[in-house]
Amino acid sequence: MADLPVSPLAPKGGFPELPAISGVRFSAIEAGVKYAGRTDVMLAELAAGTTVAGTFTKSKTRAAPVLDCQAKLGGSSEGPAAFLVNSGNANAFTGIAGVEAVQAVTGAISDALAIDEARIFTASTGVIGEPLPAERITGVVAGLKDGLASDRIEDAARAIMTTDTFPKGSGRVVEIDGAPVKITGFAKGSGMIAPDMATMLVYIFTDAKIAFDDLQPLVSGLCKGTFNCITVDSDTSTSDTLLVAATGASGVEVAGKARFAAALFEVMDDLAKQVVRDGEGATKFVTISVTGAADNEDAHRTAMSVANSPLVKTAIAGEDANWGRVVMAVGKSGAEADRDRLSIRFGDVQVALNGQVADGYDEAAATAHMKGDEVSVGVDLGIGDGSATVYTCDLTAQYIAINADYRS
Amino acid sequence: MADLPVSPLAPKGGFPELPAISGVRFSAIEAGVKYAGRTDVMLAELAAGTTVAGTFTKSKTRAAPVLDCQAKLGGSSEGPAAFLVNSGNANAFTGIAGVEAVQAVTGAISDALAIDEARIFTASTGVIGEPLPAERITGVVAGLKDGLASDRIEDAARAIMTTDTFPKGSGRVVEIDGAPVKITGFAKGSGMIAPDMATMLVYIFTDAKIAFDDLQPLVSGLCKGTFNCITVDSDTSTSDTLLVAATGASGVEVAGKARFAAALFEVMDDLAKQVVRDGEGATKFVTISVTGAADNEDAHRTAMSVANSPLVKTAIAGEDANWGRVVMAVGKSGAEADRDRLSIRFGDVQVALNGQVADGYDEAAATAHMKGDEVSVGVDLGIGDGSATVYTCDLTAQYIAINADYRS
Repeated sequence: MADLPVSPLAPKGGFPELPAISGVRFSAIEAGVKYAGRTDVMLAELAAGTTVAGTFTKSKTRAAPVLDCQAKLGGSSEGPAAFLVNSGNANAFTGIAGVEAVQAVTGAISDALAIDEARIFTASTGVIGEPLPAERITGVVAGLKDGLASDRIEDAARAIMTTDTFPKGSGRVVEIDGAPVKITGFAKGSGMIAPDMATMLVYIFTDAKIAFDDLQPLVSGLCKGTFNCITVDSDTSTSDTLLVAATGASGVEVAGKARFAAALFEVMDDLAKQVVRDGEGATKFVTISVTGAADNEDAHRTAMSVANSPLVKTAIAGEDANWGRVVMAVGKSGAEADRDRLSIRFGDVQVALNGQVADGYDEAAATAHMKGDEVSVGVDLGIGDGSATVYTCDLTAQYIAINADYRS
Repeated sequence: MADLPVSPLAPKGGFPELPAISGVRFSAIEAGVKYAGRTDVMLAELAAGTTVAGTFTKSKTRAAPVLDCQAKLGGSSEGPAAFLVNSGNANAFTGIAGVEAVQAVTGAISDALAIDEARIFTASTGVIGEPLPAERITGVVAGLKDGLASDRIEDAARAIMTTDTFPKGSGRVVEIDGAPVKITGFAKGSGMIAPDMATMLVYIFTDAKIAFDDLQPLVSGLCKGTFNCITVDSDTSTSDTLLVAATGASGVEVAGKARFAAALFEVMDDLAKQVVRDGEGATKFVTISVTGAADNEDAHRTAMSVANSPLVKTAIAGEDANWGRVVMAVGKSGAEADRDRLSIRFGDVQVALNGQVADGYDEAAATAHMKGDEVSVGVDLGIGDGSATVYTCDLTAQYIAINADYRS
């Protein structure tokens, strides 16, 4: 992939300062899986006793590493564990060779780091359908081991980028029962983003102490309000993976602690929004808020219909306050709607009220809102109490250029 | 709308020679609804006794003329009838003003042509949400009446174009019980094309003799295999309308005649494919055929998931035999699928077989197929007997340019 300019929506100030998590070390290396002149494999080593929870794509054609992770989740938390991820090749739709590649990689890590294979979670991201050259990864395991350090999280985040234009990190420190608990994480994702129960690749680490049976439902629940509320292009990856590792090194038990859940939500929400900010070709960060729906599911369906509409997304790219296309996308969503109760806002500007253009609608004000790099679209269905918010980006010619020219 | 170059996929030879239908006269005129320097209103006058059947968008935000047509369908077929269509304004999401605009237009036509308002079917296509200036249309009714002629079908087809780059016509003459029966029709549509029980605007005329109760189920049934099998951009219009008028002038009763149904299917199929051929920014006509699905519904869902995937459509634009993206789109469709039974073809080239790249796969041959302007993608799910075929086009930067710059 040729170097793309950094997204204009990237967070200012670059990769954030993140707290180191006791019990977690990172490494990254150039294995030449597909890309040249950059790192493309990352390793995270997790101390003995680390709890691992996660969510994964629901795709019917999910990749070999995803199936392997799903089979391993919920096993013993006793020994050490590891995450290993390569970019450049998704190891998806590769049949028995894909399974063997996962085994080769996990076997090499197991031997080198003395970790039970059942505790090694891998992922692969990149082109679908090409056999993964596992020997390029197994050949650098010694180098990966030598490079392990607790402060290399940004290196790890960079090694898993594909069409991403910036590495995405987020962290929080919260005080629980008088002691600090740390959470850090990173993500990759830019295209093929319409997660279905997970997102592209997300790795979150905490020194909190929490059992799998408590952590897994917390992660699954928070995922619904974060990664499942973003879309770049309505296409769902075969590799979506979110893993959360809790080392317990802080000694602070966090099961049932609302403050921990809130901090974990903030990290997941931040990473999810950074994925949208790096949406392929994006020039606008778009928030779609739906209220007044029959229920929350209808609200989410309506918001996703607006967020995935190519005509809405191109209008936003063109800075056109074209609310007629929002009406169209509401109408096709399948959710309960009544044309004559529908109201629409762009930013704070009331555009339409009860099924027609609002009295005194100020198109100049609406257009001014569209010219900013943060656009918000409000839809009130006027029927019930359901609400939902989703995040997306605009659709530009750069998206076409990236995807017509790049085999990702 | 600035003049767009004619689609490279337009049928060679321009608008076809179409048989005149006894009992039908057409007219077109410039009313200045929105566009300048071109016709934008068309009138079709239908002889007394003409049967009218149709299908319409299922959108929850459908336009005032659509609601008016739906209320009128199935009424008496005794007197004369008329279709009146304007381009430039969709009269959608216009509240009570929209209803009044329909009444003003149908009232003026009723007065001028002595046709019962209950037999006057209107449609509007163009920008959503702006009040329709009905007085511009009522002001040209006398001119429309004066211009009526049986051979002006191409003029009528041109008057309803918006982002269309060519007028779309189709006709057939079939012999039934020893007598010729004629069918002609025209359509408009280029973007906001993902019809849900109908398409943008389609008008079909025949001199066959057939009652409403026979014609309507025939039209609805054929619609499922034609207009409901195309998609340009996954966005469903607020105005989709298909009307079929049978004047009976041939004296040939066609209820239950398979030959008539086949000819009507051919006209509808031809017009549906012409809409795809004029897809906004299209450079490739794409056929997606799915076999081996659990049932026909699953096959259709899978085919539409592939046809609407922006990553598949941009790969086709880039002439990249990127079958991994087809795998992705199959996986996200929601239909039953088994990764290890999935097979994929591009043209006649077997790309993947039973969940992985086919032995001896010839990428050069697949790429050669992608370079043509007709691309076919075959997906076999290997599960059951369900099959479906849908038609779409590629997604190019020109689609973005048209829709980021044009308020349609």
